[in-house]
Amino acid sequence: MTVKIEKPKMLPPKNDFGEWYNEVIRMAEIVDTTYPVKGFQTWLSYGWMIRNKVFNILRKFLKDTGHEEYYFPLLIPDNLFSLEKETAKGFEGEVYWVTKGGINPLAVKLAIRPTSEIPIYLMFSKWIRSYANLPLKVWQLVNTVRYETKATKPLIRVREITSFKEAHTAHASKEDALKQVDEAVNIYKKLFETLGIPYIISRRPDYDKFPGAEYSIAFDTVFPDGRTLQIGTVHYHGQRFAKSFDIKFLDSNGETNYAYTTCYGLSERVIASLIAVHGDDHGLKLPPDIAPLQVIIIPITSGKESDNLILEYSNKIAEKLSGEFTVKVDNRDLRPGKKYYEWELKGVPVRIEIGLKEVESNTVTVFRRDNFNKINVKTDNLLEEVQKLMNEIIENMKSDADKNFKSKIYQSEVFFSFTEQDAVSILIDEETGEFKGGIVEVPVCDNVKCELQISNYLTVLGEPLEHRNIKGKCICGRKAVKIIRVSKQY
Amino acid sequence: MTVKIEKPKMLPPKNDFGEWYNEVIRMAEIVDTTYPVKGFQTWLSYGWMIRNKVFNILRKFLKDTGHEEYYFPLLIPDNLFSLEKETAKGFEGEVYWVTKGGINPLAVKLAIRPTSEIPIYLMFSKWIRSYANLPLKVWQLVNTVRYETKATKPLIRVREITSFKEAHTAHASKEDALKQVDEAVNIYKKLFETLGIPYIISRRPDYDKFPGAEYSIAFDTVFPDGRTLQIGTVHYHGQRFAKSFDIKFLDSNGETNYAYTTCYGLSERVIASLIAVHGDDHGLKLPPDIAPLQVIIIPITSGKESDNLILEYSNKIAEKLSGEFTVKVDNRDLRPGKKYYEWELKGVPVRIEIGLKEVESNTVTVFRRDNFNKINVKTDNLLEEVQKLMNEIIENMKSDADKNFKSKIYQSEVFFSFTEQDAVSILIDEETGEFKGGIVEVPVCDNVKCELQISNYLTVLGEPLEHRNIKGKCICGRKAVKIIRVSKQY
Repeated sequence: MTVKIEKPKMLPPKNDFGEWYNEVIRMAEIVDTTYPVKGFQTWLSYGWMIRNKVFNILRKFLKDTGHEEYYFPLLIPDNLFSLEKETAKGFEGEVYWVTKGGINPLAVKLAIRPTSEIPIYLMFSKWIRSYANLPLKVWQLVNTVRYETKATKPLIRVREITSFKEAHTAHASKEDALKQVDEAVNIYKKLFETLGIPYIISRRPDYDKFPGAEYSIAFDTVFPDGRTLQIGTVHYHGQRFAKSFDIKFLDSNGETNYAYTTCYGLSERVIASLIAVHGDDHGLKLPPDIAPLQVIIIPITSGKESDNLILEYSNKIAEKLSGEFTVKVDNRDLRPGKKYYEWELKGVPVRIEIGLKEVESNTVTVFRRDNFNKINVKTDNLLEEVQKLMNEIIENMKSDADKNFKSKIYQSEVFFSFTEQDAVSILIDEETGEFKGGIVEVPVCDNVKCELQISNYLTVLGEPLEHRNIKGKCICGRKAVKIIRVSKQY
Repeated sequence: MTVKIEKPKMLPPKNDFGEWYNEVIRMAEIVDTTYPVKGFQTWLSYGWMIRNKVFNILRKFLKDTGHEEYYFPLLIPDNLFSLEKETAKGFEGEVYWVTKGGINPLAVKLAIRPTSEIPIYLMFSKWIRSYANLPLKVWQLVNTVRYETKATKPLIRVREITSFKEAHTAHASKEDALKQVDEAVNIYKKLFETLGIPYIISRRPDYDKFPGAEYSIAFDTVFPDGRTLQIGTVHYHGQRFAKSFDIKFLDSNGETNYAYTTCYGLSERVIASLIAVHGDDHGLKLPPDIAPLQVIIIPITSGKESDNLILEYSNKIAEKLSGEFTVKVDNRDLRPGKKYYEWELKGVPVRIEIGLKEVESNTVTVFRRDNFNKINVKTDNLLEEVQKLMNEIIENMKSDADKNFKSKIYQSEVFFSFTEQDAVSILIDEETGEFKGGIVEVPVCDNVKCELQISNYLTVLGEPLEHRNIKGKCICGRKAVKIIRVSKQY
């Protein structure tokens, strides 16, 4: 299951998050970052299995809600690319352009998709004729590239997004499209809840919405270093793209109308979050449903004759569990401690230790990766006990993550002034004086200039979707009329 | 399950293969070919499901033989691209070059992968240190692009290969690498046999091997129009790529040595073959293991009160089968004949027709897509009967395809002369005077000039892998020493 990559002796502590993150994805064999083009990574086998597990869960949720999986072309001709002016402008600095085919220049340059609105809406305009074709709900899981100018970080800010899940839908009415936005939000909620990734949902400010959207809703999580990461977005387009791409249909009254479209996307940032939110000083902690290996069995041999008994017993235990779980017996010629270290690093949820004591008492010792508890279990109950444990593990992981997340959402009644120091100070721990990060909810007035002033220093994540009673004053001194969330963002 | 695409009244007969193929992939909703860039297609949901079924079968075979799934970067910098001179030269006319990022020219132009030897062997050189790291067997399923100058044809000759499965392996000895070539050949055999796609295996001539390989083995099938299609290749690289990319390891004696590498690939041509080999005048015929929908149930209602009984009964039958099969009740308000037509077009292996007669006799009428037989089955035995039928269907499909394929492999004792007319005449039916196509095995001498002369008119597929007793004379008049296979190739 592993490529032997040279390893340092120790994983840095998670407190030192930047270092920890880079090392854990390397040591646990998620991605290799040494490819000599900035922002392009190689997924290693173990990482790719985790990636596939996550997207297969999402695939099921999408199927259950009537989405159909398609695959749209990688390259977009320049003339199509500029059809939707807002999108073209929004992506102008980020597009990789293909200008040569073989040894000759191309007559029309081709964009590598930074996202697929254009090919998808072009096809929609060919497919949609009448209201009977609607709703049309398609999605794809593809690679996209963006010429990212900021510093890249594996799985977080990359130039090749290897795992871009984008869904696009068209509807006969605004009402239907808005319902679709709700459905999309619910699908993402369900995904993040399944993975135990806490989130907060905000309506992004108009000046930060998807280029071409009427509005954008985003999911953000908080990383251990206090910075936030956008992990999913849902966009309502109204009829804008339908008008740019001529997506028209005959409604039930025989009138021609433009369709209403929505889209929603997420990427390998979900995997980054899974790693960052749950991991600890020992390495990854994987939810049982995501773990490529759920149970690792370590025979504690001692070089004596009884070793055969132990190995035989270990294999029997593996067989007993293998109908329900992915199980492996690690019988490599290494010290148990070294094996523990490796499988903890890889986040295997349950470890079973088997020595002569266990064989003789017809029991096994079960270790939980999430809280390091060890219990002795009779083999007769083993299957049920492990099943129970797996449920406890994900519940415990969720509860830990949620508690941690909630402690990082603050309310502030007022922003005192406009200076960078004051703005950032609301993310500073008053007692220790250290950057605590997280998300602060602050009251502002309805003048966008005040928000923009704040956004010079902090990222404005946007407004809560739900109604709030507003207290406090805006930085301008006027009465606040809404809440905005601010953070230091990845 | 469908996007409503405008349809002509009738599928052309399969005899008119070119037309039939283009129409069947459109009407059965495999791909949409109207994207305005030559050679770039959109996979529709139904086609993509078939594609996923096929590659999931292959995924299992690869896993069972110790291959690990990775994902390597899409873009390759120019300086790396030219490291392996043979490969660079071989692909020089086919590479799409990215020269602009955002609004600026790139310092180093980037190739979109036409295949991934380069990124993969680059990473191998970082990962492989000692014989303990070997064998290393990786694979990926990715999109690649090639600036194809010949006429494109959907799923057969495309510019975006959306589904390129490439496996790459490194070994400590030539012997191990050659064993790997055998394993690869066996995996592909197993895949094609599972799909009922007949094949012939040839060792490609040296002048037509993969650029950089020591030798190439290829799988070819024969299409209904008599032309052959290469559907899979296996390459032995010796130490060539290891030397270009510095893939060295310490062997068990402490000596440094270059690794031996192999690679093998196939693509969506497998889906093209599945369609072309099995389909008929009614549309697709899908092997049950590949069919997204395995059983379609059609209630034969008549607008009477008894319709409720029929629908209820249909749903009960669906439920009975749904544990084992993918089943759907088609209760749309359409004539049964129209429904038959649609699901036959889509290749659903089994159709169940339920009218009042069936309800009253506690039976169902079962229709087989492969041979159009209808039988009446008691519902008590239904599950077992349908399971039996599914086995019979794939066996019958295989046997039909094999019989057809074998009838298209001919032996010829001599090539009379060098003219195009004579060369091609061996693919002409003597009685009817029509192009029959297929593969002809002809004897040649050991002078490559003779082969090259033949290859001016016909594709030389190469030699059989197994030993043959050679009779006859070469075109040059000398005694033949080997057999080569020739065809008109896609």
